Amino acid sequence: MPVNYTPPTPEQLLPVRGITLGTAAAGIKRWTRDDVLLVKLSPGSHASGVFTQNRFCAAPVIVCREHLAQSRHTRALLINAGNANAGTGDAGLAAARLTCVAVAKQIDCAPEEVLPFSTGVIMEPLPVDRIIDALPRCAAALTPGGWYAAVRAIMTTDTVPKGASRRIEIEGTAVTVTGIAKGAGMMAPNMATMLAFVATDAPIAGGLLRDLAAAIADLSFNRVTIDGDTSTNDSFVLIASGAAPLRPIERRDDPRLVPVRAALEEVAIELSQAIVRDGEGATKFIAITVEGGRDISECERVARAIAHSPLVKTAFFASDPNLGRIVCAIGNAGIADLDPGRVSFWLDEILVVEDGGRAASYREEDGQRVMAKPEIGVRVALNRGNATTTVWTCDFSHGYVSINADYRS
Amino acid sequence: MPVNYTPPTPEQLLPVRGITLGTAAAGIKRWTRDDVLLVKLSPGSHASGVFTQNRFCAAPVIVCREHLAQSRHTRALLINAGNANAGTGDAGLAAARLTCVAVAKQIDCAPEEVLPFSTGVIMEPLPVDRIIDALPRCAAALTPGGWYAAVRAIMTTDTVPKGASRRIEIEGTAVTVTGIAKGAGMMAPNMATMLAFVATDAPIAGGLLRDLAAAIADLSFNRVTIDGDTSTNDSFVLIASGAAPLRPIERRDDPRLVPVRAALEEVAIELSQAIVRDGEGATKFIAITVEGGRDISECERVARAIAHSPLVKTAFFASDPNLGRIVCAIGNAGIADLDPGRVSFWLDEILVVEDGGRAASYREEDGQRVMAKPEIGVRVALNRGNATTTVWTCDFSHGYVSINADYRS
Repeated sequence: MPVNYTPPTPEQLLPVRGITLGTAAAGIKRWTRDDVLLVKLSPGSHASGVFTQNRFCAAPVIVCREHLAQSRHTRALLINAGNANAGTGDAGLAAARLTCVAVAKQIDCAPEEVLPFSTGVIMEPLPVDRIIDALPRCAAALTPGGWYAAVRAIMTTDTVPKGASRRIEIEGTAVTVTGIAKGAGMMAPNMATMLAFVATDAPIAGGLLRDLAAAIADLSFNRVTIDGDTSTNDSFVLIASGAAPLRPIERRDDPRLVPVRAALEEVAIELSQAIVRDGEGATKFIAITVEGGRDISECERVARAIAHSPLVKTAFFASDPNLGRIVCAIGNAGIADLDPGRVSFWLDEILVVEDGGRAASYREEDGQRVMAKPEIGVRVALNRGNATTTVWTCDFSHGYVSINADYRS
Repeated sequence: MPVNYTPPTPEQLLPVRGITLGTAAAGIKRWTRDDVLLVKLSPGSHASGVFTQNRFCAAPVIVCREHLAQSRHTRALLINAGNANAGTGDAGLAAARLTCVAVAKQIDCAPEEVLPFSTGVIMEPLPVDRIIDALPRCAAALTPGGWYAAVRAIMTTDTVPKGASRRIEIEGTAVTVTGIAKGAGMMAPNMATMLAFVATDAPIAGGLLRDLAAAIADLSFNRVTIDGDTSTNDSFVLIASGAAPLRPIERRDDPRLVPVRAALEEVAIELSQAIVRDGEGATKFIAITVEGGRDISECERVARAIAHSPLVKTAFFASDPNLGRIVCAIGNAGIADLDPGRVSFWLDEILVVEDGGRAASYREEDGQRVMAKPEIGVRVALNRGNATTTVWTCDFSHGYVSINADYRS
């Protein structure tokens, strides 16, 4: 059960003009559910992506980067669950390209206008024939109302489908933002694959969309998947079909961008937090803010050291205010000249450590009360600069071990 | 149960001339066992230490460093379990100094000749009165045969006492090396405290002992506790009582040092591996060797990325050859210019990944067979240089979560 997250109903995922989605079952694993998703975009659609920093990035990530560099427009996305097509070498690259050629034939576009995505087990050959066989069935199922079926088809260890929509109005025209995401392993440096697709019918120009994708990722998915600590397949794609009857939005200072951007950010933040809330075995949602750093990079190091410490995470699971574990994690963040005597931190509004030592006002029962909550805020003040950042994480439970010890069986 | 580790019997821990040990119960936690250890060293003894790199190092670590810098000789060590005296600020420092003064009075030496150590819960005030009250009882119990009782008194989540001895002969004189260690949380960056004390009666001079301590730590405890990823209290102390009737060993090229050094290294390696074998919840012992790096630092980053990945560790627990998780961890080690196409790795003798992809010869049943073993070797070849390193780690089980979720209760 995710922490304080109610999955969307099918009706809550609003259609986005210019975008249809269709799913089918290719039997990639020993399951009978749909596991292949085709997303078709109307001519003139733009897409932009932010991808994993892992050096062993998966074949589809390599192909996505190539295709986005080669083609101004994107006409389709193909996503499969059950096999990550990662660690598969040249054969994996060829397989990813083959699926793009097949999609291009199916919907009559160029192969470079197709973006492939895979999620699932690493280092097993992609069953490319079964995926290609499923394409006509995906195409037959294409529908603007396919978002809910779509997110269900790309789930792996997710316990619930994750999606969100916003509808705004620009110059009297309704504009929609809908996003879906999968991923449930944001516990630690090597998480399960995160895939997120956020689309709008607002006519955002290609160059502007690229800037937006990077900026929105920094506010949302990068707060979960800190740079360099990502799976082989992580991808966040922003799509603008341009099908809303509006003049193109080409400039960053176009006032019509303001509400669109706000809606895109809201959906992206909701999805990225949903991934943490549905973290493998998660029972707590923890927001870690580090302030007073010299730069954002050192704030992130401290926040990540706390977020990734198994000792801190098991203490959250146990609702145990074993706060020394947070102190220890801060000390291990690798900031060589950090002065512990200037560090303070809070659990929600409770001051726990002041100037490097236990705060005089701190009472164990106050810490206990905060630790027992399903949502906990940790705020650390380094008192050496003006930078600040926030990351989101979850606790570490028996459920995590069970899920990851049994994942392939 | 530790993995392939049989704890020593009391008789196997040989007395070291010039050293006596005594324990007593101070009731630091809600237990009745002995939890304070006094180690008394004969006049002229030297000690040297390697301590945590954590910026929030504990008060006793600060005092140890001061005392080792201030005094040529060391006459006593005082160790308590149940409270780490870390994150305790100036009050903690004063408490650690008070205990040294009390030991100095008890055994008639200078306070700077006393080294204090603590292990247990962080950020709670040290019950200094109870520890000082226990000192006369420790002193009354001092005995050369006290090593086994000593290691039992400093255990926390350890399931077995860890100790080892070697006896060698130099110029017809018997020389002894005996070491004890505690620590059982080497699972991840923020492990439980490791304390290790290795002593000999060989008359090794102070300067030489300092070099030896650093060199031996690099071959043993630093292979578990990689620099910068240590608890607030981690300490490794090398002691030379000099009580064996031999001329002083003052030079690195003294041939009499060769067998002493070999015995010290053997004991240190046995103890550091024992800590991993008794890792919290451990069911597997895993040695990770990374070779062909440009320098040792990048080999360590890759080895640590594998050793610390919860996904890799749960796969080992499940005996699941989910080898993509190792590939993913290598990719996340932060080596920006790593060419995945040159990376190969082996599980024991089984070639799994060759040139970045699944080896043609690899069969799942071979991987399965290795993963089912209690001791597993992972060897990674980066093929970009001549550096190599090895780290030791263990798997990640339900037991780890239970131990750390319940630790304080």
